[in-house]
Amino acid sequence: MEDKKILLTHGSGGRLMRDLIRDVILPAFDNPSLRKLEDTAEIPAHEGGRLVMTTDGYVVRPLFFPGGDIGKLAVCGTVNDLATAGARPLAMSAGFILEEGFPLADLERIVMSMKEAADGVPVSFITGDTKVVEKGRGDGIYVSTTGVGLVPQGIELSPAKIRPGDAVLINGPVGSHEAAILSARNDFSLGVAVRSDCAPLFRLMEAVLREVPEARCARDPTRGGVAAALTEIVEAAGYGIELVEDEIPVEEPVRNLCELLGLDPLLMANEGKMLVVVPGEKADACLKAMKGAPEGADARVIGSVNDRKPRLTVKTPYGTTRIVTVPSGSQLPRIC
Amino acid sequence: MEDKKILLTHGSGGRLMRDLIRDVILPAFDNPSLRKLEDTAEIPAHEGGRLVMTTDGYVVRPLFFPGGDIGKLAVCGTVNDLATAGARPLAMSAGFILEEGFPLADLERIVMSMKEAADGVPVSFITGDTKVVEKGRGDGIYVSTTGVGLVPQGIELSPAKIRPGDAVLINGPVGSHEAAILSARNDFSLGVAVRSDCAPLFRLMEAVLREVPEARCARDPTRGGVAAALTEIVEAAGYGIELVEDEIPVEEPVRNLCELLGLDPLLMANEGKMLVVVPGEKADACLKAMKGAPEGADARVIGSVNDRKPRLTVKTPYGTTRIVTVPSGSQLPRIC
Repeated sequence: MEDKKILLTHGSGGRLMRDLIRDVILPAFDNPSLRKLEDTAEIPAHEGGRLVMTTDGYVVRPLFFPGGDIGKLAVCGTVNDLATAGARPLAMSAGFILEEGFPLADLERIVMSMKEAADGVPVSFITGDTKVVEKGRGDGIYVSTTGVGLVPQGIELSPAKIRPGDAVLINGPVGSHEAAILSARNDFSLGVAVRSDCAPLFRLMEAVLREVPEARCARDPTRGGVAAALTEIVEAAGYGIELVEDEIPVEEPVRNLCELLGLDPLLMANEGKMLVVVPGEKADACLKAMKGAPEGADARVIGSVNDRKPRLTVKTPYGTTRIVTVPSGSQLPRIC
Repeated sequence: MEDKKILLTHGSGGRLMRDLIRDVILPAFDNPSLRKLEDTAEIPAHEGGRLVMTTDGYVVRPLFFPGGDIGKLAVCGTVNDLATAGARPLAMSAGFILEEGFPLADLERIVMSMKEAADGVPVSFITGDTKVVEKGRGDGIYVSTTGVGLVPQGIELSPAKIRPGDAVLINGPVGSHEAAILSARNDFSLGVAVRSDCAPLFRLMEAVLREVPEARCARDPTRGGVAAALTEIVEAAGYGIELVEDEIPVEEPVRNLCELLGLDPLLMANEGKMLVVVPGEKADACLKAMKGAPEGADARVIGSVNDRKPRLTVKTPYGTTRIVTVPSGSQLPRIC
């Protein structure tokens, strides 16, 4: 299989497509639902709570980067979107748009990486789809994933619930994913490799909600970073949020890269971070819950909700306050 | 908006992306879930039955063709996959991978077409995602849709349930979608325009299952056509299926095109057809139910299940029998 490549006929519903699915996709994702190879698959039985759904397309370049790849990213992105609603993943689907000539070995590596990430959650891919486009009409592989999850009774996370005095927490340093992609595309000779923070955060959110079921809302700061995620919250809520710059964790090589290129870590994409807003008096309990999860070792309280204008501000180490605005585009295309 | 084009920054999480979603996507699909513009949306409450999920990517060329476009196709494809399980659609998601430079007016036309098709079912798009890739890394637009549906209690469609003596029905003439795409890509000077059969079949299947709840299984014969769909059934079931060639409806211009190009209508893709297998004594009831739906006016009993080898055969008008085999690829790439 090493040097085999995707052909247009792999996508056209004939025997070659069935072989591809049986030989490459099925061995990775094997489960009773998928094994039937029907177009429609049953979502596992469940009780109580509310069902939620999320979908995302992944077009990241390069496909493989320090800390992850497009497959792991797709699983983490979908699981983390479900986690922002406090949902436990019930089932996922995966769609592939392959470019003619894409190495089968790379496809195998990507689906194995998806399997590994999904097993760790755990969640199963119960259905999927594969299409092939002509050489020059794609870029190797695009992945789309959809997840269905169950929000337990009593949990309702929404920006509308935030109140002045609430605390804003994050589970670790910001900007690592975008910095890793940036480094992988260029040679900045930083000496230290920057790794993407790409990680599924279902367990972390489960721990947070066990300790603080009255949590107000959660957001995974992906494209547009912490700035875009919190701006969405303040605009939806009608309150302001102020961050304390000194409290925002940034890894050393990421900070160096940002200084070198004049980038703001608050605007940089993350793929293993969760912003959680909780009542002020629950900040310590939330922090403790985060720190108990592997992805929350460096969790911090980074700011608070105020009753000033509905905008995002940052208190600098010099005691001044700056307003954070979301730029019309991002700093880097195709980061996820 | 007429001459505006998609920019890379439309996909990067900033204000331009939010504007695109608010100005183009939201007006078409507007509903309370989507309006929140959160990454995760709630699936409408429902009771009883089993939940199922299906996903598909759409890469059809040309984007607009007689009888439909990539947007209508995406809605019909997902609704019809759910219908093969006997499911009523509860919610859908849509993902777009846009190529830099794609005309905004075309995107608007496509999402309006998706809205129209979804309204007719009815089903709502409750969440979505948009990514943009550089010029030359895509082909205008790729669409991926995922649907979640509810299978009523008592309905269980599966190839494992077919038995010798069962009847095989289809709701109308075969091959029209692939013939329409083929004609749209070339000028065969056929005189008559061939239109795709692209249509959502939820109502048709609902009518069939109301009359014949003991239906064995259903398949929408898309890529690979009736031949691929029935071959899947016979291989999964361990019984044979024999079709009667004279009973298989084919529209005149489609038949002419097939004869001109040496194509077999049984291998050609459909996007508004449903194959249903029912107990032999229920064939008339199923036929009547199909004919009562707008998409079933030309429904026919086209064959039956036998206890011979698990393969698909066709009885020709000359009294002979030929074996239908699924080719390794299809006759045409990117038909859906």
